[in-house]
Amino acid sequence: LQRHSSNNPKVFVKSILDGDIRSAAQLLTLIERRDPAALPLLKALYPHTGKARLIGVTGPAGVGKSTLINRLTEDFRKKNRSVGILAIDPTSPLSGGALLGDRLRMHQHFLDQGVFIRSLATQGAWGGISPALFDAIHILDAMGKAFIFIETIGVGQDEVRIAQLAQTVLLVLAPGMGDTVQIMKAGLLEIGDLIAVNKGTPLEGRQLAQQLQAFDQNHPIVRISAEEGEGLRELSSQLERELQKIDTFSCKKEFFAREELQWLLYEKLQTKGMGFPFTSELIESVARREKDPYEIVETWGR
Amino acid sequence: LQRHSSNNPKVFVKSILDGDIRSAAQLLTLIERRDPAALPLLKALYPHTGKARLIGVTGPAGVGKSTLINRLTEDFRKKNRSVGILAIDPTSPLSGGALLGDRLRMHQHFLDQGVFIRSLATQGAWGGISPALFDAIHILDAMGKAFIFIETIGVGQDEVRIAQLAQTVLLVLAPGMGDTVQIMKAGLLEIGDLIAVNKGTPLEGRQLAQQLQAFDQNHPIVRISAEEGEGLRELSSQLERELQKIDTFSCKKEFFAREELQWLLYEKLQTKGMGFPFTSELIESVARREKDPYEIVETWGR
Repeated sequence: LQRHSSNNPKVFVKSILDGDIRSAAQLLTLIERRDPAALPLLKALYPHTGKARLIGVTGPAGVGKSTLINRLTEDFRKKNRSVGILAIDPTSPLSGGALLGDRLRMHQHFLDQGVFIRSLATQGAWGGISPALFDAIHILDAMGKAFIFIETIGVGQDEVRIAQLAQTVLLVLAPGMGDTVQIMKAGLLEIGDLIAVNKGTPLEGRQLAQQLQAFDQNHPIVRISAEEGEGLRELSSQLERELQKIDTFSCKKEFFAREELQWLLYEKLQTKGMGFPFTSELIESVARREKDPYEIVETWGR
Repeated sequence: LQRHSSNNPKVFVKSILDGDIRSAAQLLTLIERRDPAALPLLKALYPHTGKARLIGVTGPAGVGKSTLINRLTEDFRKKNRSVGILAIDPTSPLSGGALLGDRLRMHQHFLDQGVFIRSLATQGAWGGISPALFDAIHILDAMGKAFIFIETIGVGQDEVRIAQLAQTVLLVLAPGMGDTVQIMKAGLLEIGDLIAVNKGTPLEGRQLAQQLQAFDQNHPIVRISAEEGEGLRELSSQLERELQKIDTFSCKKEFFAREELQWLLYEKLQTKGMGFPFTSELIESVARREKDPYEIVETWGR
């Protein structure tokens, strides 16, 4: 935080509520670092949240999610709706997350003041999901963004969990990508309220769409080319239809609150050392098979 | 457990220590279900574990991990070493894990008594990692398997965590799979003690191997065709060299013990309701923005 704002949290909070990009970016940096200075600000912002519509965008890497979000953002902007984009980057424990820059540059709306784009490096244990993700959503929400895209990097367990936080999930697939069959088999189609088939020739796209439709008759499947703008009108109108569903909106809020409490609590347990109360001597004795881990955990806390 | 064994845990434990496949399979089913009946048996087995060498095999879906494990198992069996194979199936929260059967059938050693193959459905929150995974490794270890392959379904955060439990990690890649570039960028190459480039024409394989070598000069990269048996002799001898590294073996044991304690503890916190101590009324009030989640978690446990 800059001196003037840290001295006056109220001013800082107000500037975020007014949609100020720099203040929001500063706070996002704090929450990424898990800096305790963020806490009073997050508390002050929280009552102003819960208005944004979260749209999870998931699908295998390379399927064109960023390009599609660009297109949909264009559409929202024409209707004068403000948009937030959170690109989740589950940073490898081993690298510094080199994917971020590439993805940001893909967004043509990077310079539009009505669009706030942020990649979120969620380091640590749990793939892309972490308390920082919830905080980041609240910040964009408090900024007044009507729609927040949450873009995952691929499609897997963590990504499903992230997408499920959103009220509306857009699953993007493409013909000829090996993962599609696995996605179908693993039941991941069901997470998409709406499925977009991107890339490939029109024939390939139609074939995949038919294949998917045979597998899943519950959700609209639209064949598009995000690059060339094909099928986007239909996708937009299907998306609008999904976004009208008020029921989903409120029921997801409780799910979201529950998940958030769980993650905050787990973070607290870890930070306070309550999450790992065992000494290195004890660990060594388990590693040497002098003690068994079951007994230790069973008797812990008694 | 069958009546005779449940009445006499010592007999049951001994039969697992003798390598009895049926008893091991029964216990694995119990631990998958998180049945408390497994606990005394696991405790009794634990002092007999810590001898097996764990080999993590990771890489994108469809890259040929199962075929390669088949081949390496063949090699181990010729040298009369017993082998365990654990195929991790991070069951989708939405499906029953349809991938399992397919993968098991790919293993030609399914009927060899010296090879114990098991897929492990790890349901729930955390992708493929869970206390059941640790238990399963202990069971195969206690059976006397000298080498245990831990095969992940793809490559992502969870898979990295699983692979890191192993003392030796074999990363499998293939030319022309879109994920390879992402894996390189995300620093995932570093998790492989040994990298196998499978599939593709010899030229494509060599090109990818060179590309990878330019990126990562620390780890041996071997071009193979698991299907046709090419390059396997070199891969085997490189793998043998990795397996000789005693240092890695002991230092990984402490890491393993620490991780296991952490997961058991977390499971305990969840099961006892200590992991989520909040009522649905409280969740609703958070969802309605009457209370903020930060305050609730901050004051919890005081």
